[in-house]
Amino acid sequence: MSAREPLRVALLGAGVVGGAVARHLTQRSDDMAARVGARLEVVGIAVRRAGRDRSELGVDPSLFTTDAEELVTRADLVVEVIGGIEPARSLILRAMEHGASVVTANKALLAEDGPRLYAAAAKHGVDLYYEAAVAGAIPLLRPLRESLAGDEVRKVLGIVNGTTNYVLDKMDTTGAGFQDAVEQAQALGYAEADPTADVEGFDAAAKAAILASLAFHTRVSGSDVYREGITEVSAADVAAAREMDCVVKLLAICERTEGGVSVRVHPAMIPRSHPLAGVREAFNAVFVEADAAGQLMFYGRGAGGEPTASAVLGDLVAVARHRVGGGLGPGESSYADLPILAMGDAQTRYHVSLDVADRSGVLAKVAAAFAAQDVSIETVRQQLVPADGPQAAESDAAGGHGAGNGARANLIIVTHTASDAALSATVENLRTLDVVRGVNSVMRVEGF
Amino acid sequence: MSAREPLRVALLGAGVVGGAVARHLTQRSDDMAARVGARLEVVGIAVRRAGRDRSELGVDPSLFTTDAEELVTRADLVVEVIGGIEPARSLILRAMEHGASVVTANKALLAEDGPRLYAAAAKHGVDLYYEAAVAGAIPLLRPLRESLAGDEVRKVLGIVNGTTNYVLDKMDTTGAGFQDAVEQAQALGYAEADPTADVEGFDAAAKAAILASLAFHTRVSGSDVYREGITEVSAADVAAAREMDCVVKLLAICERTEGGVSVRVHPAMIPRSHPLAGVREAFNAVFVEADAAGQLMFYGRGAGGEPTASAVLGDLVAVARHRVGGGLGPGESSYADLPILAMGDAQTRYHVSLDVADRSGVLAKVAAAFAAQDVSIETVRQQLVPADGPQAAESDAAGGHGAGNGARANLIIVTHTASDAALSATVENLRTLDVVRGVNSVMRVEGF
Repeated sequence: MSAREPLRVALLGAGVVGGAVARHLTQRSDDMAARVGARLEVVGIAVRRAGRDRSELGVDPSLFTTDAEELVTRADLVVEVIGGIEPARSLILRAMEHGASVVTANKALLAEDGPRLYAAAAKHGVDLYYEAAVAGAIPLLRPLRESLAGDEVRKVLGIVNGTTNYVLDKMDTTGAGFQDAVEQAQALGYAEADPTADVEGFDAAAKAAILASLAFHTRVSGSDVYREGITEVSAADVAAAREMDCVVKLLAICERTEGGVSVRVHPAMIPRSHPLAGVREAFNAVFVEADAAGQLMFYGRGAGGEPTASAVLGDLVAVARHRVGGGLGPGESSYADLPILAMGDAQTRYHVSLDVADRSGVLAKVAAAFAAQDVSIETVRQQLVPADGPQAAESDAAGGHGAGNGARANLIIVTHTASDAALSATVENLRTLDVVRGVNSVMRVEGF
Repeated sequence: MSAREPLRVALLGAGVVGGAVARHLTQRSDDMAARVGARLEVVGIAVRRAGRDRSELGVDPSLFTTDAEELVTRADLVVEVIGGIEPARSLILRAMEHGASVVTANKALLAEDGPRLYAAAAKHGVDLYYEAAVAGAIPLLRPLRESLAGDEVRKVLGIVNGTTNYVLDKMDTTGAGFQDAVEQAQALGYAEADPTADVEGFDAAAKAAILASLAFHTRVSGSDVYREGITEVSAADVAAAREMDCVVKLLAICERTEGGVSVRVHPAMIPRSHPLAGVREAFNAVFVEADAAGQLMFYGRGAGGEPTASAVLGDLVAVARHRVGGGLGPGESSYADLPILAMGDAQTRYHVSLDVADRSGVLAKVAAAFAAQDVSIETVRQQLVPADGPQAAESDAAGGHGAGNGARANLIIVTHTASDAALSATVENLRTLDVVRGVNSVMRVEGF
């Protein structure tokens, strides 16, 4: 196939994930074409019911069809985001028979019947990618299958269910019991009205099966996974974990042992110093121990329309590139040659510590120096420096002026975001003020 | 090329990384062959000086050569782990001219002259992979180039230099000054005798250039990167950060803005609640914000022979698979069909909370129940349960027996690793003991 000819994409499902995928394919079609080397043309979107208003997706309404069986026969690439076993399985198999590569986010199907699907893909010489099936947006498929292809994975510990992590995190941070925490999660949309699939560990077990298959290059199905949910985890358990400087997490554990592989899902205490312990709220993370690589962790959002769509689109670009014959080597990708900004144009924030005279009017002069460069101040803190020692006593910044002319204070200012040039000019001006005895330190602040 | 014909691998460099790569290729050749679909045959290892004893690598001594220029002309795949600009650059270009795909860990070269190398790879139709060049074992190249190919990366914040992270972590945890912390790092082998390249940010700047190129599909070289090292970071700065509930890290920051890209390396305060704040000692991590995926983080070891070799070998498998014509789809890989262990065979640890009578002899009976199943106890803690309330007063486990027969206590036992079957049988036996009034909770412990 020529790199110029468009690739025909069929989308199965127009729910939260399917809608996000359709939107990105429509709104960013030029960009996707540049990355693939061919245009991706959506030839149809299979939906269960016709006639519903889907105008918010911004796609041509004539693309919607209820005949998914027909749609998959006229596509080069099929994206399956219906979920569940049937009709997803039949449609994927049919698509592959007709020569289409498939991208799916369907963990339940992969956990139940993955080997059959992989075999069908191999038989028909097509790709089957499923990054979105485990831990949503977190890239795991490529790291486990490819980056670690020359290494031996020993163990995988995963927080792969956002609902249960949210519930356990609330129990840990607020002392709430299981039922209260579930209700909070439901109120905030982190748990479904019937939370069984999550809290009983079924969702995590399906993902554990896929993770183990990837990590150990072997076949594991959902029914092979030992499973315990979090419904029995009590506030007392969480408190007991805390006493041991531990936190309770629902873990998907895949272990390579001499005798084979162990795959299980159950709540467990892990030390608070462990990288997984810091995975809060509904985030997901997968911790991997490999022979040569040592400890690795992958962290991000495990669910949601946009994060899942990101993973689906990454897979779609990969299978599309494969179609147009392009490899994934860096030499073959299109470069943008974006301008590189000078440091002065970088947007950042400053933490500035000043040695100032402790008298009235100091703050006004300092604040004026910031204002002169249009730099907005977020917080000011003043620490008195006692004459007899280095220990500082804190006082209110605005009112903080005490002893006579000889008294000194530290003024600590944190700015809002501004250009590095404006921040740096502000600091230069501060150095010239008579009320500023010295600039103790200037440091940028990131990550807020 | 037939999948049966071996691929000829030339290794340039036999230092810490090269040695580890050579060892893995030799010791795990069957495994690598299964993953690639062809044997990887090491046809030569270029070294600077002949005659040195390299018997610990376990490779045929006749493979060592000082004629790297000749070696690269008779290889399908060239692994460059010499480092530095020359002769690495000439050898890589020569290898590609002769049709070899190249795997390199050379950040300095990629940061200085990456675009020329990518162009040469494209011209000669070969692969150039360099996962090991940034953040050692942490898979970043594939996630950024491929998994996020359908998304838009907005910002990358990376802790990409282990030495400076170790120094700043020591300053944070011990209150040490910069010089003391550097000396500690040197004593432990985390910093070189001349730490300039690390502490002045040169190493991080080279990596920032590569990260920005990958994240934004554009060209950034090391000299485009604004750079400030950590030599000016004082104990007072670290203390000031702590007061703001922040920690100081040396960050490689790549930002996509309306006007272009901003790429910079400097120390910055980040909130302790940020995922990067928990990156301790010499670990590396890269935090990514993408439009659809949201926040992602990749964590692991950024340096060392084995972790770097893991990344090199993953690349080698990828370029080798590409050579034998195999894609990377799951259907095409060889599956091992490993046995799946029953839960009873899983090795784990238990945290058991028992409601026991508070009288002498209880601990002995409980301990005997563990011993009967060969389960070794790590810690025992006894908490007295006062008659008038739920609050527990702690007492020494061994000596803790107080009031009469009616008094109760909690006995909290954490075991060493044992089979789940033995642990579970132990708990069943505990339930039958007359001194045990009840088993409050049983939870597995992981991650130690």
